[in-house]
Amino acid sequence: MRAKLERNRLIRIFKSIYPETFYRSMVVTDNKEVNKIYEKLEGYKKKLAHAEAVYDGSKKTGKPEGLRPTTKIGTLGPVGRKVDSIEHYNEKIKELIPKLEAEQKTTLREKQEACAFAFFTNRVAAASAAQSLHAQMVDTWTVVEAPEPRQVIWSNLKIKYFQRIIRQYAVSFIVALTILFYMIPIGLISALTTLENLKKLLPFLKSILDITPVKTVLEAYLPQIALNVFLALLPKLLLALSKAEGIPSVGHAVRATSGKYFYFTVLNVFIGVTLGGTLFRTFKSIGKEPNSIVKLLASSLPGNASFFLTFVALKFFVGYGLELSRVVPLIIFHLKKKYLCKTEAELKQAWFPGDLGYATRIPGDMLVITIALCYSVIAPLSIPFGVVYFGLGWLVLRNQALKVYVPSFESYGKMWPHINARVLAALILFQVTIFGYLGLKKFSSRALFLIPLPILSLLFAYVCKKKFYRSFSDTALEVASRELKEIPDMESVFRSFIPPSLSSEKADDDHFEDALSHVSRIGSFA
Amino acid sequence: MRAKLERNRLIRIFKSIYPETFYRSMVVTDNKEVNKIYEKLEGYKKKLAHAEAVYDGSKKTGKPEGLRPTTKIGTLGPVGRKVDSIEHYNEKIKELIPKLEAEQKTTLREKQEACAFAFFTNRVAAASAAQSLHAQMVDTWTVVEAPEPRQVIWSNLKIKYFQRIIRQYAVSFIVALTILFYMIPIGLISALTTLENLKKLLPFLKSILDITPVKTVLEAYLPQIALNVFLALLPKLLLALSKAEGIPSVGHAVRATSGKYFYFTVLNVFIGVTLGGTLFRTFKSIGKEPNSIVKLLASSLPGNASFFLTFVALKFFVGYGLELSRVVPLIIFHLKKKYLCKTEAELKQAWFPGDLGYATRIPGDMLVITIALCYSVIAPLSIPFGVVYFGLGWLVLRNQALKVYVPSFESYGKMWPHINARVLAALILFQVTIFGYLGLKKFSSRALFLIPLPILSLLFAYVCKKKFYRSFSDTALEVASRELKEIPDMESVFRSFIPPSLSSEKADDDHFEDALSHVSRIGSFA
Repeated sequence: MRAKLERNRLIRIFKSIYPETFYRSMVVTDNKEVNKIYEKLEGYKKKLAHAEAVYDGSKKTGKPEGLRPTTKIGTLGPVGRKVDSIEHYNEKIKELIPKLEAEQKTTLREKQEACAFAFFTNRVAAASAAQSLHAQMVDTWTVVEAPEPRQVIWSNLKIKYFQRIIRQYAVSFIVALTILFYMIPIGLISALTTLENLKKLLPFLKSILDITPVKTVLEAYLPQIALNVFLALLPKLLLALSKAEGIPSVGHAVRATSGKYFYFTVLNVFIGVTLGGTLFRTFKSIGKEPNSIVKLLASSLPGNASFFLTFVALKFFVGYGLELSRVVPLIIFHLKKKYLCKTEAELKQAWFPGDLGYATRIPGDMLVITIALCYSVIAPLSIPFGVVYFGLGWLVLRNQALKVYVPSFESYGKMWPHINARVLAALILFQVTIFGYLGLKKFSSRALFLIPLPILSLLFAYVCKKKFYRSFSDTALEVASRELKEIPDMESVFRSFIPPSLSSEKADDDHFEDALSHVSRIGSFA
Repeated sequence: MRAKLERNRLIRIFKSIYPETFYRSMVVTDNKEVNKIYEKLEGYKKKLAHAEAVYDGSKKTGKPEGLRPTTKIGTLGPVGRKVDSIEHYNEKIKELIPKLEAEQKTTLREKQEACAFAFFTNRVAAASAAQSLHAQMVDTWTVVEAPEPRQVIWSNLKIKYFQRIIRQYAVSFIVALTILFYMIPIGLISALTTLENLKKLLPFLKSILDITPVKTVLEAYLPQIALNVFLALLPKLLLALSKAEGIPSVGHAVRATSGKYFYFTVLNVFIGVTLGGTLFRTFKSIGKEPNSIVKLLASSLPGNASFFLTFVALKFFVGYGLELSRVVPLIIFHLKKKYLCKTEAELKQAWFPGDLGYATRIPGDMLVITIALCYSVIAPLSIPFGVVYFGLGWLVLRNQALKVYVPSFESYGKMWPHINARVLAALILFQVTIFGYLGLKKFSSRALFLIPLPILSLLFAYVCKKKFYRSFSDTALEVASRELKEIPDMESVFRSFIPPSLSSEKADDDHFEDALSHVSRIGSFA
C-alpha cells in the first residue's frame, strides 16, 4: 500500500514536470516467482510437443495406432512410476495455467518495486529526462535511459543508487582477486607445457612425442592450445559478476564483461606469459626489484616473441577456419537432429546460431592488437601477422555478422568508446615497454626521445574521452530532435516492455491495463 | 556573415528541440571596445557632476557668481593648458555619446561571438536544457546554466570547451607554483619574527623592546601580525587567476578563489608554519626522511600550539572587533567626505559597504577549523578558542550580513559543497596527524585503533559528494517544476541580461531589438 502511495506521488510529480510529453509508466515488479512458474509451464509445453512428435513418429514407423511415449515421475527419477507422457504433461499444463494467472495478478498488485519505466510521447523529452537530475537528493530518484526491451535485466532494475555503487566496488575487488588468482595456473602452464617438461613429467608419452611430425606440431602449438582452453573457462564467470554489479542492461553487462576479460587477458596472458615464461629464468631479479616491472617486461619480451606470434597465427588459421566453416556447430546440429530433436521448434533452436559474442571476441581482438603493437619493434613479423589477423577477420566476421549470427540486442555503437579506450591503452603500453626496451640497449640515452610519445597518446586519449564518449552514454538532443521516417506507435512501444511471463494470453489484457498503469493516458504522440 | 549563418542554424535547431518553450536568444558580443567608451563616458559624467557641485559650493561660500573650477588638459597633466572644467566635460560627453552609439551598433552587428544566452518560457525546460547534451560532439555545443545577470563575466562566455580545460590546467599549475613560492617568505617570517631574532637583526630597537609591556605584547602578536599582513596580499592575485580560468560567473570565480586560498592557507600557514617554526630545529630529520611528512608534522605540532592559539585569538579579538565597529571604513569615509566627495552619488559610493568577501573570509574560517581540530588533542585549549571564534562569528557576521554588507550576487547556497568538502578535509588531516602523533608516543600500538577514523571520514565524504553535491550544480527538475509565487515577466528577464554599456538610453531600443534577436517571439510564458 505504501508503495502504491509513493508511486501515485511520483506520477503526480512526473505529470507536473512533463505535463505534455509524459505518456504513461510501467512499474517494475519482482518477477522471480512468476518467471519460475512461466518457465516450468513453457518447459512442459515443449515436452508435450516433443512427446506428441514422438507419438506421431511412432505412428508412421511402427503400429498404426502408435506407441504412446511414457515418462517416469517422482523424486527418484528413473525408479519412479511410469505414466503416459502426453496425458501427464497436459495435466501439468492445466494445473499451471491458473497458477500462473494468479501469480501474475499477485505480482502486478503486490510485488511492485520502487522503480518504473516512464514512456514519453516526445523523443527530445525522453532524451533530456534521462540526463537531468530529478530530485534534489541524488539517490532518491535516479534516472537512466531505458535499454531496449530485450536487453532489460529486470532483477537489476530495482537496485538502489548506493547499493549499486557498493556492488560495483565489491565486484571490482572480486575481479581483481580472480585476475591475480588466475595468474598462478597460467604461469605454471606456460612453464610446464614445453615438450621437455612434458617428457619429464609424463615419461610414458616419450615414444609418441619423439615422432618428428608430432614433435614439430606439439612444440609449436602445445602451450597455445593449453592457454586457449584455459581462457575459455572464464567469460561465464565474468558475465555473472557483471550482472551482479547491478547493471540493468544486457548490452552494458556484456561490455563490462568484455572490459574485465580484457584486463584479464592483458595482465595474465600478455604480462603473465611474458614474465611467467621467464619466471624461472629471472626469478631472482623480480625478488630484488619488484617495482621495476617496465624494465623487466622489456627485457622479457624478446624471449616470448615466438610464443605470441604462434598464438596470433593459431587464432587466425585455426580460429577463423573454425569460425567460417562452423564445423563444430554443424556436427552438434546433426547429432541433435538425429537423436534429440523431434519438433520443428526444437530443430530451429538447434540450428540457431546465437549472437556474435562480444564479451569474448572483443578482448581477444584487443589482445592481438596489444601483441602486434608491443612486438612491432622487437619482432617486426608481428605487424604482418596482425594485419593478416584483422584483414581476415574483416572478411570472415563481416560475413558471419551479416549472414550467420543473429544479434540479440542493439547497443547503437556503445562498444566504440570501450574499444577506443583499450586500443589506446595498448598503444601506451607499447610505448612504455619500448621505452624500457630501448633503455636497456646501447641507445639508452636516445630512448629519452620516446618520452613525448606516451604523453601525446595520453593527451589524445583525454581529448577523445572528453569530445566523443559522452554522446555514447547520453543521447544528444539535436539527434533526438531529428525527424523520424516512421512514427512508432506508443502503445506497441509500451507493450514491448512487458516481460513474456507477465503478458497474459487473453486478448483483452484488462487486468494488466488495470495494474500496470493507473495513469489515464495524457497527450498524444508529438 | 558566417557567424550570422551559424547563428541562424543554431536558432533553427533550438526551435526544433524546444518548439514550445524557447523564448528568444541573446547573442554574446565582444564588448571590449564599447565598454571602454562607456566607462570613459561614465567617468566624464561623474567628473562633470563633481565640477558642478564644486561650482555650486563656491557660490555659497565665496562670491555670489561663484568660482568656475578649472582642469588642466593635455598629456603632460599638471603642466597642460587650463580650461573650464564644466565646459570641457560637457564637450567630451557630447563627443562620446555618438561615438558610443556607433560602437554599440558595430558591436551588436559585427562583433557577435559564437555563444548566446537562451531564454525559455518554462523553468523545467531551462533546467533540463542546462543538463543535457545538445550536439553529438561534446565541444561543438556546450551548455551551462546562465548565472544571474550581475554575475556574468561577459569576456569569459565565449571561451571554447577545450580552451577552458587548458586554461584550468595552466592556472592550477601557476597556483601550485604560487603556493610553493610563498612557502619560502612565510617560513622566513615565522623564523625571524621572534623577539630574540629581531633584537639581533635590528639592535637599535633593543632599548624599546626591553620595556616589559611592549615586550609582552610584541612577543605574543608580532609573528601573527606579520603573517596576517602577508596573507592580505594574495586574494586579488588568486581572483584574477580564477577569472583567467574562463569561469563565466563571478560567484563561481569567488568560490574558485576561496578554494585556492584555502589550499594556500592550509599548506603555507598551517603546515608551513608548523614545519617552518621547527625548520631550524628539525632540519636534519627532514633531510633524512623527506616523505615522512605525517610523522614530522605530528612531532612538530606541539611546538607551535601557542602560535596558532594566539593566531585564533587575534582573529576573534582584533578581527571581530574591527569587523563589528567598522572603525577603518568609518575613518576612510569621513576623510573622503571632508576632502573628496562633493556630490550625493560620491558620498553614497564612499559609504557603500561592499559585500561579505567570501573569497578570503571562508578560507580564514576553514583555517581556524583546521587549527581547532588538529590541536584539539595536543592542546585542548584550541577547542574553546574555536568555539569562541565561531560563536562570536555567528553573532558578529550574522549582524554584518543582515544589516551592513550588500550582497553583490546570489549563488543559491553553492558555497555549501565547497565548505563541506573543506571541513571534511580538515577533519581527515586532523585524524591523520593525530594518528602520527600518538604513534610517536608510548601508546604507539593503540594508535592503530585510530585507523578506521580517516577511512570512515573518507566514506562519509564520498557519500556526501554523491548524494548532495549534484543538486548544487544542476537544478533538480522536481524543484524547477514547483509553482512560483509570482511569474516573472520574460521581457524584463531578457532585458536584465543586457550589459549597461550596450543598453541604449533611447526609449524605443529599436536597433537593439533588431540586432540582438532575429527570432520572432514564439510561445508565451507557461
